[in-house]
Amino acid sequence: MQSLPLSNVLSLSNAQIAIEAAATLAFAISGLIEAARKRLDAVGVVMVAGLAAFGGGTLRDVLLDRRPFFWVEHAGWLWLLLALCVAAMLFLRDRHFALTEHAMQWPDALGLGLFTATGTQIALDASMPPIVAVLMGMMTAVFGGVLRDIVCNEIPRAFSDHQPYAICSFAGAWVIVGVDALQAPDWVGLTAGAAVAILLRLGALHTGWKLPAWRSGD
Amino acid sequence: MQSLPLSNVLSLSNAQIAIEAAATLAFAISGLIEAARKRLDAVGVVMVAGLAAFGGGTLRDVLLDRRPFFWVEHAGWLWLLLALCVAAMLFLRDRHFALTEHAMQWPDALGLGLFTATGTQIALDASMPPIVAVLMGMMTAVFGGVLRDIVCNEIPRAFSDHQPYAICSFAGAWVIVGVDALQAPDWVGLTAGAAVAILLRLGALHTGWKLPAWRSGD
Amino acid sequence: MQSLPLSNVLSLSNAQIAIEAAATLAFAISGLIEAARKRLDAVGVVMVAGLAAFGGGTLRDVLLDRRPFFWVEHAGWLWLLLALCVAAMLFLRDRHFALTEHAMQWPDALGLGLFTATGTQIALDASMPPIVAVLMGMMTAVFGGVLRDIVCNEIPRAFSDHQPYAICSFAGAWVIVGVDALQAPDWVGLTAGAAVAILLRLGALHTGWKLPAWRSGD
Repeated sequence: MQSLPLSNVLSLSNAQIAIEAAATLAFAISGLIEAARKRLDAVGVVMVAGLAAFGGGTLRDVLLDRRPFFWVEHAGWLWLLLALCVAAMLFLRDRHFALTEHAMQWPDALGLGLFTATGTQIALDASMPPIVAVLMGMMTAVFGGVLRDIVCNEIPRAFSDHQPYAICSFAGAWVIVGVDALQAPDWVGLTAGAAVAILLRLGALHTGWKLPAWRSGD
Repeated sequence: MQSLPLSNVLSLSNAQIAIEAAATLAFAISGLIEAARKRLDAVGVVMVAGLAAFGGGTLRDVLLDRRPFFWVEHAGWLWLLLALCVAAMLFLRDRHFALTEHAMQWPDALGLGLFTATGTQIALDASMPPIVAVLMGMMTAVFGGVLRDIVCNEIPRAFSDHQPYAICSFAGAWVIVGVDALQAPDWVGLTAGAAVAILLRLGALHTGWKLPAWRSGD
Repeated sequence: MQSLPLSNVLSLSNAQIAIEAAATLAFAISGLIEAARKRLDAVGVVMVAGLAAFGGGTLRDVLLDRRPFFWVEHAGWLWLLLALCVAAMLFLRDRHFALTEHAMQWPDALGLGLFTATGTQIALDASMPPIVAVLMGMMTAVFGGVLRDIVCNEIPRAFSDHQPYAICSFAGAWVIVGVDALQAPDWVGLTAGAAVAILLRLGALHTGWKLPAWRSGD
């Protein structure tokens, strides 16, 4: 199955493709804004946006020894990314950042759920043990942002901001692994897992729930 | 040989497995403490501890195109890592760090030697040239810590603290390559190489030996 | 073609080998100077110099799933790197850095062009789509420096200094892809692409041309 495009493997409908496109866009924009905040140049903006959008899935595929990458099979996305960055450099200004980030919370949460679902399923198809499949799902969803922050010389936000993000992905991935163990059709697990991750993330944003902090004291 | 678990490849005895477990634990704890110092959240603590414990061997396997990874073949270790991190977040406090780091020096030195030995031997089995095998041995032992420091936004300690660490691994790896060239059985080289790396490291800790610094002046 | 050494794939003449050696040297020295500025120890100096010299090509080969790496096929280069670092630690002083960096601009520009050419051609030979081949060419030329800066805890200079560097590589890579599409012999594209990248880079150095900055204001 390794040479089929992602959309075939998962029998994505048009609606799903639209959501996945929105999610990739949200991830790319997170990279773009971080690059702009750090005053990177045009090359840096494109690179960091690309890392944020495609870094997680690429790292997963390198670890699973899986080719071709999504952005090799569908190279059109790289053109889209270039166009997005050029448009952003022309029209996006500092005063738009807060607004843009707020508007991106929904597609970002969708992306978290969808990339968790596809990443976990791909790892299960490659016969990975359950906890490894969960880790791969999380990595797909979260490590684009981690690589973005490392290149921008920051401690990854996903590891340090005490807001539930990777943990929502973690929960959703376990749902997929559980449904898979019950031998239900793939789409049941994918839908349920993505839904759990997305709802947890939106719930966390809404309630301001915090991850437990390290208690430094006695 | 690529699909055999590490313990088979190297015919590890129970004693060796116990030492390797202690060493992996020591590496994980080094990640855990660094993550705690940086006030990472629960997700960050687990990720950085995992990188420190498994990052070196994983990077080596990616470069050698070798699968499955140790933590895929033996996924139980990932559960152990999770349990360790939960326990640490419940019980470990700032005032324990110095004590813990001191107590970890011994298993850390053992880990340096053992991971050097296994990494070098795996590279020799993959027909790498001597200096590449030595590099792979060093990478296995040292790059978990390097990745840990990069994610925590620090210059890697192994590259900057002027204490002999990677260099002990370097010396031990050459012993293994040398013994291998003499066609002696693998266990001779593995034991001698690990011993050299461990003794050099303990000697360096004991004597306070420093690496030569760059002379900036005149 | 994957198992042939780079020099065979590209039928390099002696002159080209000499230029490539000079370019690798220039990249290694850029790592060495950065490591020295950051006061890394001997291990760090060697590692950062090695990353700067070989990191870009290695990352490309990992992404293309291509083995053996250049430094495995030609392990002698690792010895050369070691010798270079030892010599630098003995003889290079802070007051030489500016002069050395200035002297390195020429071989660095040559390296930019040559590594772009070889990287793009290797990706085309692996049947990558045009924009992916261009990305691989750029990565080969630029990501050694990116990895060098990440390890040294800096935002990569190639992404942030607003001087045309990666963009020269980008332009040269498109020349190679274009010539390849016209079915001309490889050497035509390689020569033209490398020349474009080198001339653009030297032009940028000479004229002080700047990449467009993000306009922060209204």
